[in-house]
Amino acid sequence: MSKRIAVVLTDLFEDVEYTSPVEELEKAGHTLVTIGFEAGETVEGKKGKASVTIDKSIDDVSPSDFDALLIPGGFSPDKLRKDDRFLAFTKAFDENKKPIFTICHGPQLMINAEIVKGKKMTAVKQVLVDLRNAGAVVSDEEVVHDESGIISSRTPDDLPAFNKAIVEALSE
Amino acid sequence: MSKRIAVVLTDLFEDVEYTSPVEELEKAGHTLVTIGFEAGETVEGKKGKASVTIDKSIDDVSPSDFDALLIPGGFSPDKLRKDDRFLAFTKAFDENKKPIFTICHGPQLMINAEIVKGKKMTAVKQVLVDLRNAGAVVSDEEVVHDESGIISSRTPDDLPAFNKAIVEALSE
Repeated sequence: MSKRIAVVLTDLFEDVEYTSPVEELEKAGHTLVTIGFEAGETVEGKKGKASVTIDKSIDDVSPSDFDALLIPGGFSPDKLRKDDRFLAFTKAFDENKKPIFTICHGPQLMINAEIVKGKKMTAVKQVLVDLRNAGAVVSDEEVVHDESGIISSRTPDDLPAFNKAIVEALSE
Repeated sequence: MSKRIAVVLTDLFEDVEYTSPVEELEKAGHTLVTIGFEAGETVEGKKGKASVTIDKSIDDVSPSDFDALLIPGGFSPDKLRKDDRFLAFTKAFDENKKPIFTICHGPQLMINAEIVKGKKMTAVKQVLVDLRNAGAVVSDEEVVHDESGIISSRTPDDLPAFNKAIVEALSE
């Protein structure tokens, strides 16, 4: 069944950590909605390989409109986590046991949303330290599933495994 | 007396968090040495307002050559903290009780160098959470002095107070 997936995004996201999962999720029949600071603005990947138009402002969405949350990496998550609206949005997925898919620096947003304690997760090497300090149960593996529905990976090299895992999770 | 100060830096540093302290420290008669991944490379600030030529590669410096360490913010510290050489370099300043001056995202490098536990520090809002999780004693003030010699500030707005504090610390 087709699911609605929120993708939170702003400038300096890791290009392929947006484009690759989105392509696979759309192929599987799901609907992706990009959410950022302003509807209609164009945000740029840090490698200059992807430009994305933001569909909805964070002010105009509710977590209840979505079945899952995707948080691509790069420096986008650090910019989003400054803003309490993105923290509340992220926290709601955890509270309602909806899947959260995240890779690389994506878990930074989840740390500041205070939802990682006790969760099994991975992240890019330097963020893994922050995750562990925040109380997550970390491991250095290509994909980590937590029973809450969080699926996390480390870097673009993990994308084939990450994409497979998140597409499977949505078909369950 | 003139001191030698190491400045660790790579692309996407917060421009003014490099240019402003460096200007004040040079005015006070100190010598600044930029240290990065490669000597001679030019690194760019995230605002596009500062280009800096790296004086020394991290491979060609020893902490014993310097009296203090300056870590500007932006996304530079997150790139540096991926590299064990920068972690070891940073850790040595702490072990030898040499002053470390840091602002905004700079403390990220110190978190991964595992030197913040029990230290009184501040940082930009979103990194303050990581600092607290890493065991630092955090506060939301324009300048925080730790007795170990760490001086930290939050954002470019704090630069006047930060610059004053670090220049004073070096004159003691």
